Order: sequence, then structure tokens, then C-alpha cells
Amino acid sequence: MIVSMKRFATKAEIDSVCERIRDFGYKIHAIEGEERVVIGVVGVGDVTACLESLEAMDCVEKAMRISAPYKFVSKEFRTGKTVIKIGSDVDIGGDDLVVMAGPCSVESEKQIMESAYAVAKSGAKVLRGGAFKPRTSPYDFQGMAEEGLKLLAKAREATGLAIVTEIMSDGEVDLVAEYTDIMQVGARNMQNFALLKSLGRCGRPVMLKRGLSSTIKELLMSAEYIVAHGNPNVILCERGIRTFETITRNTCDIVAVPVLNELTHLPIVIDPSHATGKRSLVPPLCRAAVAIGADGLIVEAHPCPERAISDGAQSLHLEEFDRMMRDIAGYVKLWKESRAAMAATV
Amino acid sequence: MIVSMKRFATKAEIDSVCERIRDFGYKIHAIEGEERVVIGVVGVGDVTACLESLEAMDCVEKAMRISAPYKFVSKEFRTGKTVIKIGSDVDIGGDDLVVMAGPCSVESEKQIMESAYAVAKSGAKVLRGGAFKPRTSPYDFQGMAEEGLKLLAKAREATGLAIVTEIMSDGEVDLVAEYTDIMQVGARNMQNFALLKSLGRCGRPVMLKRGLSSTIKELLMSAEYIVAHGNPNVILCERGIRTFETITRNTCDIVAVPVLNELTHLPIVIDPSHATGKRSLVPPLCRAAVAIGADGLIVEAHPCPERAISDGAQSLHLEEFDRMMRDIAGYVKLWKESRAAMAATV
Amino acid sequence: MIVSMKRFATKAEIDSVCERIRDFGYKIHAIEGEERVVIGVVGVGDVTACLESLEAMDCVEKAMRISAPYKFVSKEFRTGKTVIKIGSDVDIGGDDLVVMAGPCSVESEKQIMESAYAVAKSGAKVLRGGAFKPRTSPYDFQGMAEEGLKLLAKAREATGLAIVTEIMSDGEVDLVAEYTDIMQVGARNMQNFALLKSLGRCGRPVMLKRGLSSTIKELLMSAEYIVAHGNPNVILCERGIRTFETITRNTCDIVAVPVLNELTHLPIVIDPSHATGKRSLVPPLCRAAVAIGADGLIVEAHPCPERAISDGAQSLHLEEFDRMMRDIAGYVKLWKESRAAMAATV
Amino acid sequence: MIVSMKRFATKAEIDSVCERIRDFGYKIHAIEGEERVVIGVVGVGDVTACLESLEAMDCVEKAMRISAPYKFVSKEFRTGKTVIKIGSDVDIGGDDLVVMAGPCSVESEKQIMESAYAVAKSGAKVLRGGAFKPRTSPYDFQGMAEEGLKLLAKAREATGLAIVTEIMSDGEVDLVAEYTDIMQVGARNMQNFALLKSLGRCGRPVMLKRGLSSTIKELLMSAEYIVAHGNPNVILCERGIRTFETITRNTCDIVAVPVLNELTHLPIVIDPSHATGKRSLVPPLCRAAVAIGADGLIVEAHPCPERAISDGAQSLHLEEFDRMMRDIAGYVKLWKESRAAMAATV
Repeated sequence: MIVSMKRFATKAEIDSVCERIRDFGYKIHAIEGEERVVIGVVGVGDVTACLESLEAMDCVEKAMRISAPYKFVSKEFRTGKTVIKIGSDVDIGGDDLVVMAGPCSVESEKQIMESAYAVAKSGAKVLRGGAFKPRTSPYDFQGMAEEGLKLLAKAREATGLAIVTEIMSDGEVDLVAEYTDIMQVGARNMQNFALLKSLGRCGRPVMLKRGLSSTIKELLMSAEYIVAHGNPNVILCERGIRTFETITRNTCDIVAVPVLNELTHLPIVIDPSHATGKRSLVPPLCRAAVAIGADGLIVEAHPCPERAISDGAQSLHLEEFDRMMRDIAGYVKLWKESRAAMAATV
Repeated sequence: MIVSMKRFATKAEIDSVCERIRDFGYKIHAIEGEERVVIGVVGVGDVTACLESLEAMDCVEKAMRISAPYKFVSKEFRTGKTVIKIGSDVDIGGDDLVVMAGPCSVESEKQIMESAYAVAKSGAKVLRGGAFKPRTSPYDFQGMAEEGLKLLAKAREATGLAIVTEIMSDGEVDLVAEYTDIMQVGARNMQNFALLKSLGRCGRPVMLKRGLSSTIKELLMSAEYIVAHGNPNVILCERGIRTFETITRNTCDIVAVPVLNELTHLPIVIDPSHATGKRSLVPPLCRAAVAIGADGLIVEAHPCPERAISDGAQSLHLEEFDRMMRDIAGYVKLWKESRAAMAATV
Repeated sequence: MIVSMKRFATKAEIDSVCERIRDFGYKIHAIEGEERVVIGVVGVGDVTACLESLEAMDCVEKAMRISAPYKFVSKEFRTGKTVIKIGSDVDIGGDDLVVMAGPCSVESEKQIMESAYAVAKSGAKVLRGGAFKPRTSPYDFQGMAEEGLKLLAKAREATGLAIVTEIMSDGEVDLVAEYTDIMQVGARNMQNFALLKSLGRCGRPVMLKRGLSSTIKELLMSAEYIVAHGNPNVILCERGIRTFETITRNTCDIVAVPVLNELTHLPIVIDPSHATGKRSLVPPLCRAAVAIGADGLIVEAHPCPERAISDGAQSLHLEEFDRMMRDIAGYVKLWKESRAAMAATV
Repeated sequence: MIVSMKRFATKAEIDSVCERIRDFGYKIHAIEGEERVVIGVVGVGDVTACLESLEAMDCVEKAMRISAPYKFVSKEFRTGKTVIKIGSDVDIGGDDLVVMAGPCSVESEKQIMESAYAVAKSGAKVLRGGAFKPRTSPYDFQGMAEEGLKLLAKAREATGLAIVTEIMSDGEVDLVAEYTDIMQVGARNMQNFALLKSLGRCGRPVMLKRGLSSTIKELLMSAEYIVAHGNPNVILCERGIRTFETITRNTCDIVAVPVLNELTHLPIVIDPSHATGKRSLVPPLCRAAVAIGADGLIVEAHPCPERAISDGAQSLHLEEFDRMMRDIAGYVKLWKESRAAMAATV
């Protein structure tokens, strides 16, 4: 249930509405907005009586049932795009297309520092790098763990880049949150509900990757878990789904971007590296991702992909990354014009 | 097997090579190129002896086994893009991005003429419209058949647009070829091998749509059927594949475009209407298709989608189509610059 | 629309009902049943007026709209199982589980005769063998064509087995029907609507294989094409669908059997050879297919699979086929008991 | 690497081999077998030198590289089936087909006790029931947590049934292990590697469900995680995969059973409830699962499925469960004969 207050409702009026909601046995989940306050309500069973009672109050503009199974992530809850502030000067979902880049795994200080300086110089704003690695085989490199997190923090200090890194267990949320700006949930953990709840309680922005065979609605439900547990800062990521086609590592469902833009206010980024699994396909997909209106890109780049411990085949050389950034510049310009035009309409 | 002659080989030299190939029991399939002639050879069994014998000839530059299961559609056979001439002034695979547009089905003279004038004015070069309709249900409208073909021909006469329409049976090849410029093979017929062979024997350009669950390699094999039976003018079309995701009608495998560009010289168009199944998603996907480097688009547009007999939900209103064409203009400009840059490099 | 006459309605009453239906502009499609006649009606638009008018007639028990998109293949049209007579003494859908077996392709007289004698001796009732082969590559063996059909007919004469063979084009229906008892539509042609219509007009029983990525409802719609065009003798075949799993050639959707048994009266067979692509997996899947209630099996068996021109890896040796038949005997006994129990209940 | 000792090797000989392995920098992972000891070795890099050195020792029969990416779960490591002892008298993978049954979620003492008594009477050996529920929506019932575990323990005490229940987070392993006999890993957590590692360290038997879009090889790799971290007691479970077909909840990949039987020694059970999502399809799939050679079944059954908090549509009524158990009795008899025959051959 969502309750829209009339414009310029007073604090006392808002409180009286909340009290009535609680009297009906429902829970206030979130209160949004400055000029026009929107109150999110969570509750089970028939809400009709409560709705009618609320609409009878003078200070209430409208009280609505939400038909979608997700509430707080839906467009009905917030029409404009959610802008997520990362560090001091990165906004995801705002006026700039944000590029995140870096190696698959943090492998050494030299490797991560070299990557960080290079991608920053080429225009990336966020450094990616895995310290905890989800690997299909127990015998593969599992990541540098806290040592890797420390190297990422060092790279941030040196370059000013924000950091995004993967979190694999609810038991490690505090540890990872200490070092990173964005907590990444990998595709295999998209429905690790224990982890999602923990991330809801942790304030840190979350980048939630779509599962290999998860529908767009399930992605939104997983985002709803995080928001419903208290953390509104969720970035969605399309990284390719699993289909019968094996010539690429996954199949990029690029249309997920406009579909999600119709359903949710959360920002969406594309991961062209995992979506394709092949270096040469990354730059064309980056162009398409910008053109279709993604809010950002997360791209694997490595000083020496041939020697990367993981995902070498899909990582760009640092010079290729630089070339790609120049390659998409014209598209980014069109992207900005289109965002400005949209803003003007609203 | 492919045999490259030395530059400026004489006709006599080419003939002598062909003779030797035939002596080994193989069949000459095609001879390509002006300055540097390439001879395509079809044959089964071990070709080693033949290869060695040919390479011993002075006029032969190189004789190669082809490892890919497709030969004539592969990049190894022809490096540059195949440019397919449609009518007098449309080139698919050339310097212009070609837009094909029109209704799903030809429904009446009024409907097709109105559509044709409108899409021509907005910049389309080819009119689409189905006269024979593949329908899941035997009780659904099956198309106007020859009557529909005649209306398409009339629209061509009036507007100068070329025509693309679907062919569903090898028994109707002659009939359809009489009226249309491009013979469209629908997704459900991509592996109707009897039809593919007939289209190989018919000279008319073919637009081959990828099957709902066909791999990119199977698409190329089906194209190879047409080319191997004598018709080199094949346009490939990505129209979305079937996956577990049901929020869109299909899942557009947009990365198929750069993948195909690495494997084949044939031009590739995107069908954003069937790929999404939803009108509002068509314009963003058109932008992405241009950005990723497709050679063309085929878009459903209808004077009154609400009353369309088929595919109304995914058809643009004619004004929406016009707006979409203006919307993609900036992207088309970047597309042309990129093609010109590529041409300059080669 | 389906109209149930009262029991023992006279011919004159039936005619009067048909006349009224035609007066409303609808078409009588089929009349079924002896004791209680059911009339199938095809027509578009709102049938309410016609329904009411028919129900006002004394001789009419009930007139119903059919909600499923398929009519004649639905359980609403006929509750008991359709029993399809093949030759003089094979019933598919009846009291016996029917096993069809033989090589993928007819390769030579020796090969097909040896196969026929062997599978007949082991208990098969129908001989399979392809004369027209759908092959992904134009360079692969395309079948012996009419020569192959003649060899199949010869094997029938020698062994008394009925024949099932594939038909690939509507142009070849008459030719194939001349030689075979069952016309097989391959997975790639399940939605070749021109072919389905031709097979509807041809009286010969049809075995319709489910498409690689076709839903069960689409399979029923394709069967409906054949029945609506006049041929009620359709056998459905589950042969595995295409999924992300590549360790088997396809994924056998075995639950399609009970699902189809709830939706249609048509018999269903399982093809364990294409479903698995691997010889060792065929016998266990045969057991499961019998246990789940399939009406038959179609199994690839070859005198020398190692030298088979096609599908060798999934073909059983003739001795393995014999062993498999003995292996499933206990399950077939339980199958018969269960059929007898069902018959007793109805 | 796997090292087979000669028959009746002494402890001293085994120790000497282990020492040499450690000298090469590798790790002894497991030592198996009584009469003939097999030593599992984990290590990276080229093992050639070590292999040669070991084979030079008199007490070593053979030292082999393992080519499959999984080692300890592979048939190369152990040829016979792993028999997993649950409580005092249940063997999974042994001479009896084990049926696990019960409600989706533990809802109340009355519900779980009634279920337990009924399924025990019908012949089930293990009681299922979820205390921690993975739910797509954060607003759905999340399970009774520890309270639910206590009720399961109570039902075990009353009926003698063993208990299987789901574990969702590595933080809850100790808690759940305190109450249950089998720790179930749900499909969505199949690649929750933190959880798998914890379960490896915990001794308790694990039932690992295949992920919605996980390949059979990935399932084995996840099992390998558990075994490689110290717990050899892993039961695999096929519960349907996600495909384009939506008429059933999932698509049961029943052929996974014989495929897994060729690759691994671990026992395999089928979950017909999640595989189909529909009550009426469960009994036929149970028959097929027995016929194809599964080691067990896990079936949802509930005193009143219409009022079940979760999965009501796919739960059998307790009487239906009883009927199903009688329905499969003939198949179970054949199953036992086949196991006995196999045992006799080996």
C-alpha cells in the first residue's frame, strides 16, 4: 500500500496518518519525498478498510494498493530515477553515464594499481576487482580475500576512484563494507536471501547482478528484499542470461534496460564482459548499451589479460579499454542530450 | 576447399585449375573476384592430395581446407561485406543503413498504401507486409495470398519502395518471386531445407530470419544451403530467440551482430518488433541496433495498430515510426562515420 | 464451438442442427460418435446467439464454446483416447505399447533389410528409416529419396512391419504417401504450416514431432492444423527440447506425456534416441517412458552404428535393441495392467 | 591425482606414499578403501614428476591424473555407489529406494505431526519440511525458523522418521545441523560457495539440489566443493530446470539420472513436486523416476494442500500420497530386481 500525502503536509499530519496505519496492524516501511510525502506500508491481508479510512483523512491525497509484487522498487512508488551517490562525486542514475572498470580478480598490488591508474585516466569513475571470487571449481583461485580488499582501498586512495567488489556471504558483510563503496552481489547469489537481507540492513550501495536464469521480475523482487530491509541504494546489473546459444558466454538481454526503465526507478548498468565472454565483442556491446539508455557500464580490463588468473578472454587490455572509451564518446554525447531532453520534459 | 589464384591470373590459368579440381572428382561451386580470383570447391573425403597438386601450380597463390562447416558464407571465402542490390537504388550491406517498415500483414489496399506512403516519407527504403502468414492457429487469419502480393506490387509502383514479403513453401517460390524484391524466410522455416534449396535456385535476394531456438552457426548453415544452391544474395536477420524470459515476446540476441560480423560477409538486419513484442521497446532497441553495427532494421508500423489483424501490440503507429526515424538520426550519423572509417582502413 | 446431441438423436435431427449452424454462417467441421453425436463447429466472432439458438432445440444436449485455442485435438472434443490403426494389425493409442525401430537413414538394401528382420524379431511393429533427411549442412548426406522409399516398402513386404518415414515438403506428400504407413513430420518442420495443411488433406496417419523449442500448446496447435484440414490420425512425439544443458543432445521433457494426456485424446510416443543423443542413455529412458504412460517408443537401431551415415552415436546395435526390449518387458506388463484398470474405470 | 595402492598395502607403505606426495608440495585429501586403498591428492601445476616418482614405488598399483574437473565425486575415484547412512536404518544409494515426504513448510505442530504419521505409515523413511524458506518475495512467509526445526525433531522422535530440511546461510549451519539428519541445499543456493564450504566442514549428510539453470557438470562441481572440504556424504537431487516451457513449473531433466550414474558414485533423488508444480503430474513422474533408476524420491504431501502456506498446488493430499506409494509398488519391485542383478554382476 502506498499513501500520498497532499502537498506541504505538516509533520503532525504525517504522524497522524502513520498512527492510523499502525492502528490497522500494518507497518510503515518508508517515508519518501520533501514537498510531497509518500508513505510506504507493508502488510498482509485485505487492506480495503485501511485504504478507505486513510482516504477519508483531509491530508491524504491518495491511498493505493500496489498490484506489482514489488513495491518500493516500482515506478508507482517513485517516478523519477533514483540517483545513487557513490563517494563524493559519482552519481549513478544521474546526468552522467558511469563507467566502472578493472580486472576480474585482484591479483597483486602492481596489477591493481596499474589497472586503477589506467582506467581512471581513460575516464572510469569506479574501480572493479574481486577479492572474494565465486568459482565453479573448488580448485580454482578463490581470491585474495581481505588482502585484496586492502589493495582496492589503497588504489582508491591513490586514484580517487570509488570501489566495487563482490560480497559472497552474509557473514562477510561488515568486513567488505569496511573497504568498498559498492557491494556487488554476483549472479549466482541473486537469490541468496540471507545475503540480501544483510545487505538491506547495511547502508552501503549494492550492485545486484541478474541471475543466469532469473527473470526481470525476479531481479526486481531480489532488489525489493534489499530495499524492504532498509537499503534503498540498489543498482541493477544485466550481465547476460543463460540460453541455448553457446557461441557467447551468455546472451545479453539488452532490452532489459528499457523494460526495467518502465518498471523501476532504480539505475541499471550493463556488464558487457560477462555478457559476451569475448574481448572483441565488448566494445560494440558498450556502444549498444549506451544507445539503449543504460546508466552505466562495468567492464573488465587488465594490464595483461593473457596472464589473468580469471576471465582473461573477456578482459580488455588497458589500451583497448582506452580506445573503447574514445569509441563510445559520440554515443555518450547523444546519451547526455537525451537525458537532458527527458529532464526538460519532466 | 578454397583456392586463391595469384593476382591477375588469366582465364586460361583459371580454367586449368578448374580442370584439375574436376579431375580429382570435386565440384567447382563458385568463382569470385576480379583482380584476385577465388575458387570455391565442394567435395567430400580427404582433399589433401588435391590441395598439394593445386599448390604445385604456378598460378595458384594458396589452396585451403575450410574448417568451418559453412564455406561460402564464411569470412574466409570473402573478407569484405557482401552488398546486396535491391531494385535500382537500395544497397544492403553498403554505405547506408537500410530501414524496412510496414504492417505485419497486408490487410487492404487502403492500409498498405497508407503505410507505404508514410514509411517512405519517413525514410524507409523497403516496404514489408505479409501476404502468406505463418500462424500458430489454423483458425487465425492466414493472409491475403496472391491478392496481397498484388497490393504490395501496387504500393511499390506508387512509392518506389522495394518489397519484402514472406514465402512459406517451396511450391510458392515462383509465385512470390514474381512480385517481391526480397523473399523473407520466417523463423519457423529457417530449417525448412526444401524451401532453402528452392530459394537457392531462385535468383531473388533472400532475408533469412534466425529460428526461435537456432544457434548462430545453424543460421549460417541455413544461409549456406541457399548459397550452395546458387544464390549468394542472403541477408541475415536477428529477430529474438526463445528463452525462459517471458516479459518480452523474445530475447533479442543483439550481440549476434558483432559475432556474425566476425564470421560472415553477409549483411545482418535486426527486427526489433518481433524481438520485443511491445511497441514502447522498439525505438530504444532500434538505437542499440544501429550502435552495434547492424546493416539495417525491419520494423512493423501500421496506420492503426489497435485494429491490426496481427501483431498490433508490437507495431508502431505511423507517427511513432516517423519519430523513431528522427530519434535514431544521430546514431545513424555515427554509424556512417564508423563505416567510412572502416572502409578507409581496408 | 462443440454441440453435443442428446443420446440416440436421429439423422434428421442432426441435419437440422447442422443447417441451423450453417445459417449462422459457421462451418461444420466434424461429426463424431455413434450413440452420442458431437458436432464440431468452426467460426469466428461472437457465437453467443448461435449457442443460444442451438440450446433451444430439443435434440441438443449442450452447446459449448471451447476456451482452449485447439478444439478437435482437445479432451473436450473427445474424452477417450484416439486409437490410430496402422496397416492391418497395429493400433497406436490402444491396448498395446507400440515400438517403432530402425536406422536413422535408409542407406542400402542390405542395411534396411537386416534392420527390419532384427527389430521385427525383437518385437517392434513399425520400421523407421529416413529417405529424405533434414540435415543442418547442405554438404551432408540428404537421403536416398524415392529409392529409399522403395527399399522401405520392400522391407515391409518381407517382414510385415508397418513403415514410418519423414516427409519434408508439401510438394512430396503424394510421393511419400504412396510408400509409407505413417508420415513423420520432423521437429524442424513442426510449424511448416504449408506441410501441415497438405497432411491434413492426405488421409495417411501422421507422426508429429515436437519442435526443438516448441511449447506443448504449440504442438497441439500444429496437430490442430492437420485435424482441422481433415485428418484426425495424428500421433504426437516428444523427442527432447533444446535447453542450456549440452551433455545430452536435447532435454527429454518426459512430463509432456501426462500433461498431454490431460489435454488431448491423441496418442503420444517418446523418441529416446534424439532426446538423449547417446546410446547408453536410451534403455533407461525407454523404461521411464513406458512407466510414465507413453503409447509408444520410436528408437534408432542399426546393424553397425559405428558406420551409420547419420546419428550413429545414438543408435543401438541390433543386439542392444533386443536386450532393451527384454529389459522393458516387466514395465510393459505393468503398463498393460494400468491400461486395463483405466479401461475398467471408464 | 589419484593413487591406487596395491592390494593389502601396509599402513607403513601408505604413509611412505603420503610422505612422498607431501614432499612434492601436494596435499592428501582423502584416503579410501579397506582392501585396496585409494589416495586422493589435490595440487596445482604439472604433476608429471610426482606421478612418475610414485609409480616407481613398489607398493603403488597406479597413479593417475584426473581429467574431469571434479575428482572425488567422479566414478574414477570410486566405482561402486556411495551409500549414505541416515540415522540408524536408512541407506540412500543402497538396496532400497528411499522416499522422503512431507509438507513444503513446517506450519504448525498439528500439521507436521499429522503429515509425519501419515507418510511414515505409507512407507516414507524421511520427513521433509522447511523451517527456513527461500521465497522470491520478501513479503511472503519466511518459515518458522528454529521453532520449525524443533517441531521436526519432535516429529522424528514420535515417528522414527529421519529429517531433511533446508539450510540457507553458512551462518546457520550449526543451528540446523543440531536438529536435522540431512541438510538440504536449495536450487537457488547450489552455487552459494560459502555455504557449500561450511557444509563440507560439517559432517552431516547434504542433499544438493540442482540449480534452475545449472548444468549437470556444475552440479557435480558444487558437490565437489562439499566433498573437497571434508564431507563425502552428498546426495544429488534433480528438481527440474528452467526452460521456455511454462505449462509445468520446471522441466524435469529425468535423463540426468542415468547421466549422473555414468559420471558419479553419489546417489541421486528426484523431486517430482518442484519439477512439475502440479499435483496430478506427480504420481506418473514418480513411476518414471523409479523406472529410470533414481535412488530415491522427495515428494511434497500435506494434510490440506488447499490451505498450505506454500506450494499447495504441487502437494499431494496425504491419501493421494498413500495411493501413489501403492501405485509405484510394482515399479519398486522391478527396481530392486535390477539392483540385485547389478550387484550380482559386479
